[in-house]
Amino acid sequence: MSRAGKQTFVYDRPPAIVAHASIAGPKEGQGPLAEWFDVVLEDDLLGQKSWELAEMEMVRRCVQRALNDAHMGEDAVQAMLGGDLNNQIIASSFAARALGIPFIGLYGACSTFVQALVLGSALISGGDLDNAVCAASSHFCTAERQFRFPLELGSQRPPQASWTATACGCALLTAPGEGHSGPLRTTCGTVGRVIDLNITDANHMGAAMAPAVFDCIAAHLSDTGRGAGDYDLIATGDLGWIGRNLLLELADAAGVALPPDRLIDCGASLFYQEQDAHAGGSGCGCVASVSCGWLMKRLEQGELRRLLLVGSGAMLSPTSSQQGQSVPGIAYAVAIERED
Amino acid sequence: MSRAGKQTFVYDRPPAIVAHASIAGPKEGQGPLAEWFDVVLEDDLLGQKSWELAEMEMVRRCVQRALNDAHMGEDAVQAMLGGDLNNQIIASSFAARALGIPFIGLYGACSTFVQALVLGSALISGGDLDNAVCAASSHFCTAERQFRFPLELGSQRPPQASWTATACGCALLTAPGEGHSGPLRTTCGTVGRVIDLNITDANHMGAAMAPAVFDCIAAHLSDTGRGAGDYDLIATGDLGWIGRNLLLELADAAGVALPPDRLIDCGASLFYQEQDAHAGGSGCGCVASVSCGWLMKRLEQGELRRLLLVGSGAMLSPTSSQQGQSVPGIAYAVAIERED
Repeated sequence: MSRAGKQTFVYDRPPAIVAHASIAGPKEGQGPLAEWFDVVLEDDLLGQKSWELAEMEMVRRCVQRALNDAHMGEDAVQAMLGGDLNNQIIASSFAARALGIPFIGLYGACSTFVQALVLGSALISGGDLDNAVCAASSHFCTAERQFRFPLELGSQRPPQASWTATACGCALLTAPGEGHSGPLRTTCGTVGRVIDLNITDANHMGAAMAPAVFDCIAAHLSDTGRGAGDYDLIATGDLGWIGRNLLLELADAAGVALPPDRLIDCGASLFYQEQDAHAGGSGCGCVASVSCGWLMKRLEQGELRRLLLVGSGAMLSPTSSQQGQSVPGIAYAVAIERED
Repeated sequence: MSRAGKQTFVYDRPPAIVAHASIAGPKEGQGPLAEWFDVVLEDDLLGQKSWELAEMEMVRRCVQRALNDAHMGEDAVQAMLGGDLNNQIIASSFAARALGIPFIGLYGACSTFVQALVLGSALISGGDLDNAVCAASSHFCTAERQFRFPLELGSQRPPQASWTATACGCALLTAPGEGHSGPLRTTCGTVGRVIDLNITDANHMGAAMAPAVFDCIAAHLSDTGRGAGDYDLIATGDLGWIGRNLLLELADAAGVALPPDRLIDCGASLFYQEQDAHAGGSGCGCVASVSCGWLMKRLEQGELRRLLLVGSGAMLSPTSSQQGQSVPGIAYAVAIERED
């Protein structure tokens, strides 16, 4: 494996995405991407006694579905990389307990799914792993009561706030030549820096994360010698409507060409405006489900050939916000390309 | 790079530990390892306005000290891998913000430092990174108020409870042949599974983690074809006094030879019994500071030649405990050996 530059891993043995699965909640299943998700939940409790147990069960089912699609048992999977927004990432670790797969717990807030793809691909390309499942989830109800207010209060949300998606996405990666089919490969991945331009409004996560997303995309393009035009699509997740516009402004100011017609945001794609999600969807499960449910299928269908998926996270906690700290952002980017 | 077995990475290009640093709090600085730590804090607020800001500053100083020892600037470091016990790992991510180093946030509870060494070594051995800093921290006061009770209540602690260490450890890894000196190499690392034998007492973390530690050690020995006798020392972190005895019982019952005279626990080594730490030290910073401050120096001095460092984490959250869930454990193991 080789390093293109300081922040980007180039996968000399590009891992194959041999299966992927997506689960979306009831509200997400009424949005523009409804038909693309593998499963739309009717009951966002999944028959469990708490929202947290529901999120764990959603992760377990999503991983199980991807493995079923690849005709692979849990015992054959060498590692699960992933995380979620719950304190101490309990949704992912409890799902890993149920699955029995060696577990690498990550925390990158809403960027976690892309962080997992970047690391899992590196471990496979480098020969450490033959395969890995990458998964990330979020649940509106676990996130609201942890980060904001009890749902029962019915608190009003400001227009710049995003809506934490109830969703999960999972991708199964294998080393090349493992006998599995499918055209999708991860070819390079970029690890971002923690960037903070002093946004102190914890509801304004698009603004807090846009600088980190720009920094990561700029590093990726510089490291690889590519331009934005080398990708059919750059998909961020999740800046929302406002953050996407700020990203375009930052790129413009820095003289980095980022054609608006090739730039979408997963959070801004998940809901109709009239669904009252304000700035758009967010949460680890948003970029995970939108990429596994929609973007990877568009790549498989040949509509897209080269995708740059950029996950971004706001690395705040309720404690850091209560103590008056600003909101640091981070981002990771992974290139997913058709092999043929 | 090659895989010895399902869970163990064998580093074909064994990374060098070229620098390490340890910071310990005032109470930890009165324990048996006092003289081994690079810094013992007199003020566990480090002049900051909150415990959380103090923990962030402790991480920043610890990383800075390791880099200074290696005469390396932050700009030359390609990645920081690490985490802490704070919700959303704010101590590590805010430190990464201050340092400007590309950041890979991890969560493995008290196992996080070893998790970082296992992953960082894999990324270096595989050629993804030329170097990486691995760091993990904990702070008694941030942990108590987050996981247990406000300090001001003066709550009584049960005898099986451990004492979260105020401490940080950091190791700087580089690819072999990078021109740095020092005899220490990481040679292989094992990723554990999440194991849960249904311990529901959130204060009894040694009991909750001992099965995961045993599972990880057994996988490591099986994957590598080594026996416990191939290591001068197996150091767990942090089972405490009670968990260590449970580990020995589990090994005995399974017929795995684990000589008690070659097995120590970082948590059980950090405090004198009369320091009222009950079952021993814990927290991400415990195994990090004890290994960076004490064990790596003993390796450098030639007293030890082959160390198996096993970090263990209790993957609970206050929410999972309040909902009556049991405490899942996880463990990671890394072999640190003298090259000569």
